Amino acid sequence: MKPNIILIGGGGHCKSSIDVIEQIDEFAIAGIVDINPSLENLFGYPLLGNDGDLSKLKEKYEYALITIGQIKTPSIRMKLFEHIKSIGYKLPIIISNKAYVSKHAQISEGTIVMHGALINSGAIVGKNCIINTKALIEHDVIVGDHCHISTGGIVNGGANIRCGTFVGSNAVIKEYVTSREFDFIKAGSLFKGYAND
Amino acid sequence: MKPNIILIGGGGHCKSSIDVIEQIDEFAIAGIVDINPSLENLFGYPLLGNDGDLSKLKEKYEYALITIGQIKTPSIRMKLFEHIKSIGYKLPIIISNKAYVSKHAQISEGTIVMHGALINSGAIVGKNCIINTKALIEHDVIVGDHCHISTGGIVNGGANIRCGTFVGSNAVIKEYVTSREFDFIKAGSLFKGYAND
Amino acid sequence: MKPNIILIGGGGHCKSSIDVIEQIDEFAIAGIVDINPSLENLFGYPLLGNDGDLSKLKEKYEYALITIGQIKTPSIRMKLFEHIKSIGYKLPIIISNKAYVSKHAQISEGTIVMHGALINSGAIVGKNCIINTKALIEHDVIVGDHCHISTGGIVNGGANIRCGTFVGSNAVIKEYVTSREFDFIKAGSLFKGYAND
Repeated sequence: MKPNIILIGGGGHCKSSIDVIEQIDEFAIAGIVDINPSLENLFGYPLLGNDGDLSKLKEKYEYALITIGQIKTPSIRMKLFEHIKSIGYKLPIIISNKAYVSKHAQISEGTIVMHGALINSGAIVGKNCIINTKALIEHDVIVGDHCHISTGGIVNGGANIRCGTFVGSNAVIKEYVTSREFDFIKAGSLFKGYAND
Repeated sequence: MKPNIILIGGGGHCKSSIDVIEQIDEFAIAGIVDINPSLENLFGYPLLGNDGDLSKLKEKYEYALITIGQIKTPSIRMKLFEHIKSIGYKLPIIISNKAYVSKHAQISEGTIVMHGALINSGAIVGKNCIINTKALIEHDVIVGDHCHISTGGIVNGGANIRCGTFVGSNAVIKEYVTSREFDFIKAGSLFKGYAND
Repeated sequence: MKPNIILIGGGGHCKSSIDVIEQIDEFAIAGIVDINPSLENLFGYPLLGNDGDLSKLKEKYEYALITIGQIKTPSIRMKLFEHIKSIGYKLPIIISNKAYVSKHAQISEGTIVMHGALINSGAIVGKNCIINTKALIEHDVIVGDHCHISTGGIVNGGANIRCGTFVGSNAVIKEYVTSREFDFIKAGSLFKGYAND
């Protein structure tokens, strides 16, 4: 039998994540945790409670994934990550069967690789990241913890995306450049690094 | 035996469409309808006549797909759509086996989803659309009838692309914004919606 | 038994190429040729020597692929291509099993099509090219010899990319335009062709 997993955050990113988890068929989605008690349209999955119920839910469920999106800042996702780790949840690595991850790449706990994303050889991706639909992480890239590489974002070879960075939809990161921690790279932009680096 | 289908319009988009239809192997391409009587290089498929022959051809063929491209305006594709519907053709939904369409998404008649395109959970795509090669329609997006999302175009979560809109190649649509009807969004641009919406 | 192949150039593009060659499982990688005698992290493949050893290595190995990247200019890759052809190496066409190449497209010797790339119907790609990760070559495009279409680059229908051209990461080439020989098209840009063409 597949282990149960609970999803924390019931917005749009959750719906995309549900699609990935259904397709890989490794976990049974037990339900959603969200602050909104009248949450709708979650493809039939029940609302299990809100963040205050996470300790109690741990008695029943072993696995959790944070399915809150991340645009302005990763702070909510970071706090939740520390919180649910401290309670004792296991955070799996979720990789869409419509994605490709090189066997020469490494990914850490709590990170989801969405449909059509591609992580190439030698890349290292940290914890609690979103590698969103159709994003590309090229050879030898380092992506720190708590980053979101948005839809269609391209991180070229050897680039270093530091902790908490947001790379906007369809943004392009030049090869071998480095972002700042908690950096914000705009959708559709070309990021060439910082002059003093 | 596979049902026959005729393709209306013998230009470049037709050649890409032929590749998709051959790969999915659900229809036999009977031939092409085009105004140019000396059409060449259609991978061996015969020219069956021009638009004036569509009623006569209906006696022999049940299925049709409009394979004319759409850049400046959808008007020709729209008129043809109404015309062949009134004659009685069935317009199938064609989805490349190299595309991914979530089981939580909906698509309507006469729409083609080309190779490498991706339609995510909760998305709704109307009639007579082209979701072109490598385009991305994210969760909860609405694409109205007669739209063309061009090669590599990214429509982010919850956006509303209204009837007749053209989204240019590699353009990015911000999440939860709305286009105007018959809108034209330039190739490579970032569309953030309209101030008054 | 799979034939042996040697890879010439041990940088980042080599690592991506190794991943492709391992996945398609048609060649056994015998090792790497590079000017740097202290080359590291090549996933366990041995350093066989430098460019001066290519004639001697030909006695043992029949197949070779140039795995040097190409950004500023293709001149090094061009010279190497002529050199190893004159020695007698066979240069295979390498197509990732995570790529899609239409059966109506043509590709020539020494060209590699990386993961997630897509070459559509009627396209013709020359010798010694890199069609990099997630690049798109649309219907009826011509790509001359010694070109590099970088990660996520989109070459739209009927465009003519002439010999030695570099198309930067996520650049978009408008349909039916023509580049100059040895042209350089910037990452993230929209190329609309030249006014006098």
